[in-house]
Formats: sequence, structure tokens, C-alpha cells
Amino acid sequence: MSVFSIIITAGGIGRRMGGDLPKQFLEIGGKPILMHTLKLFHSYDSTAQLVLTLPEEWKLFWEDLLLKHKCEIPHSIVDGGKERYFSIKNALDLCTGEFIAVHDGVRPFVSLKTIERCFLAVQEFGQVVPVLPVKESLRFIQENESKSLDRTAYFTVQTPQCFKRSALIEAYKIPFHSGITDDASLVEEAGFFIHSVEGNEENIKVTTPLDIILADFLLKR
Amino acid sequence: MSVFSIIITAGGIGRRMGGDLPKQFLEIGGKPILMHTLKLFHSYDSTAQLVLTLPEEWKLFWEDLLLKHKCEIPHSIVDGGKERYFSIKNALDLCTGEFIAVHDGVRPFVSLKTIERCFLAVQEFGQVVPVLPVKESLRFIQENESKSLDRTAYFTVQTPQCFKRSALIEAYKIPFHSGITDDASLVEEAGFFIHSVEGNEENIKVTTPLDIILADFLLKR
Repeated sequence: MSVFSIIITAGGIGRRMGGDLPKQFLEIGGKPILMHTLKLFHSYDSTAQLVLTLPEEWKLFWEDLLLKHKCEIPHSIVDGGKERYFSIKNALDLCTGEFIAVHDGVRPFVSLKTIERCFLAVQEFGQVVPVLPVKESLRFIQENESKSLDRTAYFTVQTPQCFKRSALIEAYKIPFHSGITDDASLVEEAGFFIHSVEGNEENIKVTTPLDIILADFLLKR
Repeated sequence: MSVFSIIITAGGIGRRMGGDLPKQFLEIGGKPILMHTLKLFHSYDSTAQLVLTLPEEWKLFWEDLLLKHKCEIPHSIVDGGKERYFSIKNALDLCTGEFIAVHDGVRPFVSLKTIERCFLAVQEFGQVVPVLPVKESLRFIQENESKSLDRTAYFTVQTPQCFKRSALIEAYKIPFHSGITDDASLVEEAGFFIHSVEGNEENIKVTTPLDIILADFLLKR
């Protein structure tokens, strides 16, 4: 049995894509994005516990998709909350692994190498996120302020974000507030140092129509 | 006659792509990236002065490309320097427009609307860059520090970066140093406030093999 529980978050019904179908269910290569993601983690570690957060009203739809695509990967489903925070909190109650990875359902292109880097590092350091250096010039802009930044110190954060179960549970004792940007920020708020490993460029979050185009292309490669 | 001079920078021979051909000459849709960019600005304002910075050793190659693709857009060519800073400095000597736009040669997908937003704003405010909000979680990482950031105040900076000619000339009196990240950072260092307008998502800098794939797709749309 694996020491890992993997929470795959698809609790939102964001419609930045336009259309009525939440983005996690959009198909690339004839299969829903979320199913690609699920399969990927299963292929990396077939004994890890998989927990999916889904909007309650889309659970039946997901079950139909599983049947339609003959997907038989074992996984639990928990209700997505109003905010991502509450989705994770729900999922946490189910997780039994010593280590917990939290991954965006709409990141189907995380590489097995990135997963490996994260899974190894969390066992060594306790909490870790995959990051990539910011490629473009960066600017800090607020009402009456606009200043150029030295981008070499800035990194975009991907998932899977991995934690010791005990640290993540500790962090989720902090009540919800609007300043939570991701799980790492919450774990950091709880007093832990967040380590980082290299992510992969293809590990995009599919959130806009342009991303879907890129996703289709990445899949065909 | 237009009040604009447009510097298109292609002075580098970066080979992050692998291969021997500098990325600005790679073809998408059967035409070099740089030629797409040149055509775009010409189509926006056919009377603007166009100045290209090119690596000296690739000038003949470029001229062959122009013949091959029957590209007859009038433009000047200046030598690319060791650093982008020196390329721009060379180009500046030639620019006669009251306003100067500096654009990356490997950004062929800047929208005409982004160009318009920049060109209108610079005439009103004097210096402006197109920006987009950072989409992913952001982290500040240095040796013994790693902290989550509120990404809503952070923006990635695109081009064309537009300036009053007098301001840009003033800025380029500052001697070269390694902290210069883009033209806006230099103009800011010279004491000017940098305004910003909305860029466009497709306005990517084609610098990696993955970008080329996306670029091909964007072009086919």
C-alpha cells in the first residue's frame, strides 16, 4: 500500500471557458481532462489513495462519464465546497496516507518526473511544491504604484503540492480567509517552510480557450 | 507620416530552441516568425518607421529571406549588440518618430487591439506597457526564503513597450548594468512612471519548443 493519498481537485464550476460544462469535464483527445489527470496519477502509483473533489450537482454526470469511457480506476468522491479551501477540507477527512498530494484536476500534463520529484522531496522535507521560474518581465502594480521586479526571484507554483498529512491537517485548522492562494500558502501560514522542486513547462492549468488548444496539441505529441 | 518609430528586436542568437537557427528565423505557417511580426506592425500603421535589430552575422540571411518570401515592407536594419540594451541604443540613433515602440521580434501574436491600446495610451501618458495578470500562484524564492505572494498585484509585462522618444533617449543615457530587465525598467530608473494597458493572452514570446507548437496552432486559428 502506498504512503500517499492524492486529492484531485475538481470542485469548481468555473466557466471562464464559456459554455455550460465545467472545464474539468471538457474533452481533449476524446476524454475528459479530469480523467486524463486521474489516469496519470494512477499510472504513477496504482496503490495510492485517490480522492476527487467534485461539485455535488455534477457527481452523476461524472459517474456516467466513467461508464462511458470504461474508466475503472478506484477513487473516492467528496463534495466540492463553495471555495477550494472547503473542498480540500472535505477531502482531508478521507485521506489515510502519511503524505498527501493535492493536484488541480485541470492539470493533465504534469510529467511523471515532476510527480516523482515532488513525492521524493516531500518524504525528505515534509512539504514541497513544484515551481518554474517566471519567464517574462514582471511588474508590481497597485493603485498609485508600478514597479519593475527582478524576476529571477519569482516562481510560478504548480501542483501537485505535497505535504505530510499532519502538517496539512494542522494548516486546515486555520479558518478560511480570502488570502489563501493555494495549499502551500496555508501550510506556510501554519509555520512550515515550503520547499520547492522543478515543475514542468507542459504542466499548464487548463482554464481558458487558448489553453484547450494547447492541451489538444500537447496530447497529440 | 506616422508619429511612431517601431523598433523590432531580433538581435539575439538565443538557442534555447536547440538547433542552429536563431528563434526569430524559425518558420511558422511557412514564414519566419520575425516576418510575421514585421507584417503585423506594417498592417497596423503602414507609415510608421520600422527599425529591426539583427545579429550582424545574420543580416545577409535575413535579406535572402526577404527575397524568398517576396517581403517588400520598408524597414531599416541595425546591428544587434551583445546585450539587448546595446541593440536598442543602436536603433535609437535612427528613430525619428515622436513616439517609439519597442517590440520583441518573437512576439508575432500581439493583437492589433493591444497595439492600439498602447499607441493611444503613450500619446496620452508618455510611457506605457501592455500587461496581463499573473494566472498562477506566485512564490518569492531566495536562498533561505520562500514566501507565498498575493498574485493580484503582479503582472507579466509584454511588448510593445511605448515611450516618448525624449524619455527613451533620456533613459538610455543610463549606462548598461545587469539589472535592466526591459525598456520599461530603464525608463522607470530614469524617473518616469510606467503606465499599463491590457495585453493579450496570445501575445506570447516564442522561446521554447513548446511555444513553437502553440505558435503554429495560433497561426492556424
